[in-house]
Amino acid sequence: MEAFSCDPGITRPGAGVFRRKGIGGAREWMPSGGLEEAMIQLKDDERLDYLLAENLRIIQSPSVFSFSMDSVLLANFVYVPIQKGKIIDLCSGNGVIPLLLSKRTKGEITGVEIQERLCDMAERSIRYNGLDGRLSMICGDIREMPKRLGTARYDVVTCNPPYFPVSGEAIINEREPLAIARHEICCTLEDAVRVSSQLAKPGGKVAFVHRPGRLLDLLTLMRKYKIEPKRLRFVYPKMKKEANTILLEGTRDGKPDLKILPPLYVYEENGEYTDEMKRILYGENT
Amino acid sequence: MEAFSCDPGITRPGAGVFRRKGIGGAREWMPSGGLEEAMIQLKDDERLDYLLAENLRIIQSPSVFSFSMDSVLLANFVYVPIQKGKIIDLCSGNGVIPLLLSKRTKGEITGVEIQERLCDMAERSIRYNGLDGRLSMICGDIREMPKRLGTARYDVVTCNPPYFPVSGEAIINEREPLAIARHEICCTLEDAVRVSSQLAKPGGKVAFVHRPGRLLDLLTLMRKYKIEPKRLRFVYPKMKKEANTILLEGTRDGKPDLKILPPLYVYEENGEYTDEMKRILYGENT
Repeated sequence: MEAFSCDPGITRPGAGVFRRKGIGGAREWMPSGGLEEAMIQLKDDERLDYLLAENLRIIQSPSVFSFSMDSVLLANFVYVPIQKGKIIDLCSGNGVIPLLLSKRTKGEITGVEIQERLCDMAERSIRYNGLDGRLSMICGDIREMPKRLGTARYDVVTCNPPYFPVSGEAIINEREPLAIARHEICCTLEDAVRVSSQLAKPGGKVAFVHRPGRLLDLLTLMRKYKIEPKRLRFVYPKMKKEANTILLEGTRDGKPDLKILPPLYVYEENGEYTDEMKRILYGENT
Repeated sequence: MEAFSCDPGITRPGAGVFRRKGIGGAREWMPSGGLEEAMIQLKDDERLDYLLAENLRIIQSPSVFSFSMDSVLLANFVYVPIQKGKIIDLCSGNGVIPLLLSKRTKGEITGVEIQERLCDMAERSIRYNGLDGRLSMICGDIREMPKRLGTARYDVVTCNPPYFPVSGEAIINEREPLAIARHEICCTLEDAVRVSSQLAKPGGKVAFVHRPGRLLDLLTLMRKYKIEPKRLRFVYPKMKKEANTILLEGTRDGKPDLKILPPLYVYEENGEYTDEMKRILYGENT
């Protein structure tokens, strides 16, 4: 399978305004003079969203794929070397994790995504942000990456995998882009952990985000594939609620020593983001 | 091994005062007229402590065994049937968990403790509190209990096991009471989980308290022995610190569905107990 080649024709936008929206489109860029003036090729219902605090833009589409807060949390959570290193993001979607990580490291970042349409969006976002020297996308099946890229090559592996098993009962369209992103159609959790383990260097970090119901699976799979769980953080929608997201980082060939980090709360009682979430979403100075 | 027979001679105390202390002796009972007037047999450096909010007293000894806050948290955390049922507490020490659970259920509660001295303390505390109709102690090795008591007999199994593996490097006196309570000398974590699984009825609850470093072991051992982890709660000394205790409850033969409960914080920033801890320690009206 070849590396995906994105459409050309992406340039800087013209004047526009940003309108703050919810997460997954935190501020929507509204070109003042239409798409021609914006000089960026957006397809169908795609839009060019402002990527949070990082002075980045990202292309997404409500009908195809919009990044989730979980990806933002994972990009914030994972250890990354600052000056150099090789990082790979599996199940990369529209490239939100590589884009966000580009602000935390000067290393090389590769995203792997099986859906051509998403890979195309990610490639255009990378070029739009002028990051095509360090960031690249591979359109392909993550299960083929160890053979294609080599084993034990990466300092950091990140993955926001599809969350939902494909059960006999669920009615899903297996060709539908959102279904592929959300369901274990093209890769299971075990596939993702095994591939992560193969790609990571000894001592390399592997970080996943998932739902609490899969915590036990994720922990046991990591240990099965010699990624020793080291840092576990739970995300709670607000105080006194059950956690709805887990962030877990392990070390390839590490020694057992799991730390449970302080909880991360998303919302205050009044429905506003907590200070920590504001810093993650909008930067230190908010 | 026979059920331990405690010394007689335990009766209600006379007048005395309570002095509030830290946890593990929250209020120490100071008999106003000496032990003769208290009419309770305390041995060596034993003392009769006030057991928190529950209007219970417990015998303990700084040199032999004092209950830990972890036991109080486990007794507060675990599901118990209110009206009836059979409950067993493994590695029961001086019986703190059976004593505390007696206030949450009308069921029968059995404690199992291998150290005769602790079993004796527990028996005397049970009688002192007038609970010998419902609570009993067995002095013996937990590993022998399934054979002795029968399998699949208990609605609830609790265990605050020894936390520390016996490594070649640790210098411990394997006969020393505190060492037996703290180190995996007489039972490993796997022993405790296996025995819990054998004793629990199908659908019965099994609850453990442990350190975060053993979370993965505990989760995987539970699943290995058909106790499906269901409720997991992390205890943090205070906000923004790592968790230092885990509370985990599973269901024998249950279906996978792990909930991460809201965090429990022990101390406020100013060093006082949080409101939730005060309720656990001193009751609802504090």
